[in-house]
Amino acid sequence: MHDELRVPSRILLGPGPSIANPRVLKAMTTPMLGYLDSDFVGVMDDTVSLIRQVYGTQNKVTFPVSGTGTAGMETALTNVIEPSDAVVVGINGYFGGRIAEIAERCRANVISVQAEWGDIIKPEQIADACDQVNPKLIGIVHGETSTGVLQPLEQIIEIAHENEALLLADCVTSLGGQPVDLDARGIDIAYSCTQKCLAGPPGLSPISFNERAVEVIHNRATKIQSFYMDVTLLEEYWMGDTRKYHHTVSMSMIYALREALRVVVEEGLSERYVRHERNARALIAGAEAIGLEPAATAKHRAPMLTTLRIPDGIDDGTIRKRLIQDYGIEIGGGLGIFAGKAWRIGLMGDAANEQNVLLVLNAIEKLLIEFGYRVDAGTAVSAAAAVYQES
Amino acid sequence: MHDELRVPSRILLGPGPSIANPRVLKAMTTPMLGYLDSDFVGVMDDTVSLIRQVYGTQNKVTFPVSGTGTAGMETALTNVIEPSDAVVVGINGYFGGRIAEIAERCRANVISVQAEWGDIIKPEQIADACDQVNPKLIGIVHGETSTGVLQPLEQIIEIAHENEALLLADCVTSLGGQPVDLDARGIDIAYSCTQKCLAGPPGLSPISFNERAVEVIHNRATKIQSFYMDVTLLEEYWMGDTRKYHHTVSMSMIYALREALRVVVEEGLSERYVRHERNARALIAGAEAIGLEPAATAKHRAPMLTTLRIPDGIDDGTIRKRLIQDYGIEIGGGLGIFAGKAWRIGLMGDAANEQNVLLVLNAIEKLLIEFGYRVDAGTAVSAAAAVYQES
Repeated sequence: MHDELRVPSRILLGPGPSIANPRVLKAMTTPMLGYLDSDFVGVMDDTVSLIRQVYGTQNKVTFPVSGTGTAGMETALTNVIEPSDAVVVGINGYFGGRIAEIAERCRANVISVQAEWGDIIKPEQIADACDQVNPKLIGIVHGETSTGVLQPLEQIIEIAHENEALLLADCVTSLGGQPVDLDARGIDIAYSCTQKCLAGPPGLSPISFNERAVEVIHNRATKIQSFYMDVTLLEEYWMGDTRKYHHTVSMSMIYALREALRVVVEEGLSERYVRHERNARALIAGAEAIGLEPAATAKHRAPMLTTLRIPDGIDDGTIRKRLIQDYGIEIGGGLGIFAGKAWRIGLMGDAANEQNVLLVLNAIEKLLIEFGYRVDAGTAVSAAAAVYQES
Repeated sequence: MHDELRVPSRILLGPGPSIANPRVLKAMTTPMLGYLDSDFVGVMDDTVSLIRQVYGTQNKVTFPVSGTGTAGMETALTNVIEPSDAVVVGINGYFGGRIAEIAERCRANVISVQAEWGDIIKPEQIADACDQVNPKLIGIVHGETSTGVLQPLEQIIEIAHENEALLLADCVTSLGGQPVDLDARGIDIAYSCTQKCLAGPPGLSPISFNERAVEVIHNRATKIQSFYMDVTLLEEYWMGDTRKYHHTVSMSMIYALREALRVVVEEGLSERYVRHERNARALIAGAEAIGLEPAATAKHRAPMLTTLRIPDGIDDGTIRKRLIQDYGIEIGGGLGIFAGKAWRIGLMGDAANEQNVLLVLNAIEKLLIEFGYRVDAGTAVSAAAAVYQES
């Protein structure tokens, strides 16, 4: 039963984890260091500086939370929210709903601003909500992993600041794949993950608070309900002069994140954004050529995650199972109300390349034909290939 | 600035992380799998079954929390405690204090039972506290990492159950190094870490709740304040028939934990306990031979972590710095009220061996002599060697 670990080879084109960069995996074989070893503090500082670079921020309080993206979300919310605080949350997918859920558990007065799954949250909707309450925080998902929508942020940030509210952006899916640019845009709080466009393993959540947000945290009247996620203690360990012990962080995960960020920076942020955008364009061209319709509204599609409506008469589970069995390809099923109704194809980090786009399109097309779909073989890849040739 | 990762070689004999087993590091180079991939579910099941084996439990709700030992502590407390619940906490060191701190943030009515650092909590003290309040939970640290005390649990467990309270044991330092035996002892809730006696990297916290504890969680009147740590959701992912998504767990960390547990089980639990005990005995023999006094009371010393009082006139920081510089050896400084007053020498997991005991004793002795201590060279190692030869 407990034999040597053996795992099958997979081409991970789902909502994450994406395929981890081999350099990142290798970095994790580095031996442990003490959590206060000055050499390890150097590694921490390096990692923080790289996180700042990729986020586009000078924020002092920037570090990786010792948990996954959801831990980052909860860290962001639990530090800022006090009981009865009004919090406006944009919900146009599963993860907007999760922000609201966690804010409620922090005993906030949550005002939900809803949009159809696949649509964006309109700035007017946020403005209307701000007219009803005086929010301390406005939470919005930048790249909604459940729908493939990339939310425009500029106007919502403006509205937040006009209302003296903090703007929190969930960058779990977007970071490293599309610009987040915290400082240029004025995002007050952002968190992300390591296993999507950064091409690392899951396990950490890079987070950043600007000075306005930190001031709110420092001026709380009540204690933060989580000790593990208490930023006033974590900042003493991560950036304090005395590096006061809080918990034993994961050296291996930090080694991995540092290496993942180095790979990102070596490629160049804008090059990486262009690569994600181009591959998504090719994927969508191929999908549309065989009649598969993106579930996210045009002009607001997140390049790293394309949702496609499953055609009538095609069984979600069967196709995904066959993709795994015949090709070793994992794509994502729908989450929440999209379960059984949409596929989620991630082209994230290292996995965003021509080879994967052509492979997954051809595999899906072949399976659809097998299950009665009428389309000429090669239609999808040919449409995608045209995108690669034109640019 | 962001060069290739290079870390110095260290012999980690502090409070953890210990030296990670090379097989564990290698396991982390295994590629990612989807978090619902049936092959990954197999790896999860394997890991859970190994955790149960090492904990000595059949508890269904047993899994690794996606965070470090402190996340495990908070998961245990936040799931069980509701506002105003009475919680009795034994505090004879830093981590007992942390349990009380987190319980307070869960809005418990915390009754602290104090003992001197280095002493154990006496069962009568717990019984007295139970006479004052009707506790829902009694929290106690099995191996107190700040003092090196191994707390006897049997009588306290009995008292807890006579009072219909749940017994929570912090096994962060003890698991894999000394028996915890949840089921045989009747421990209701336990959590641990991966980077001490399991010889893995930090990043996960194996946790286990028995049926009584799970029933308490399922019958809560209020919502659990943490979403990330909500066991009612986590159990659906880890052991539910449908494996419902909660958050993207860290494949790499789970691969590592599985391998670490395999190594433990291959050695054999009792063999491992004996090895930890024997090396600690040699260390203490050597230390006492040169007049270094253990800070933990006799008969209740945790073999994986020996605390030694720093002799008058010897500067803590200087010695520890020289140990790193001259020998690459890390030992721990004191925590809390032991800061500057005690050293913490961990012989945990792979690091609990004769080679390290002789090396650290000889190094400390040599430095003490350099700083004016009068003792014949070789006294410490000779006393330790005698222990190895007699057994």
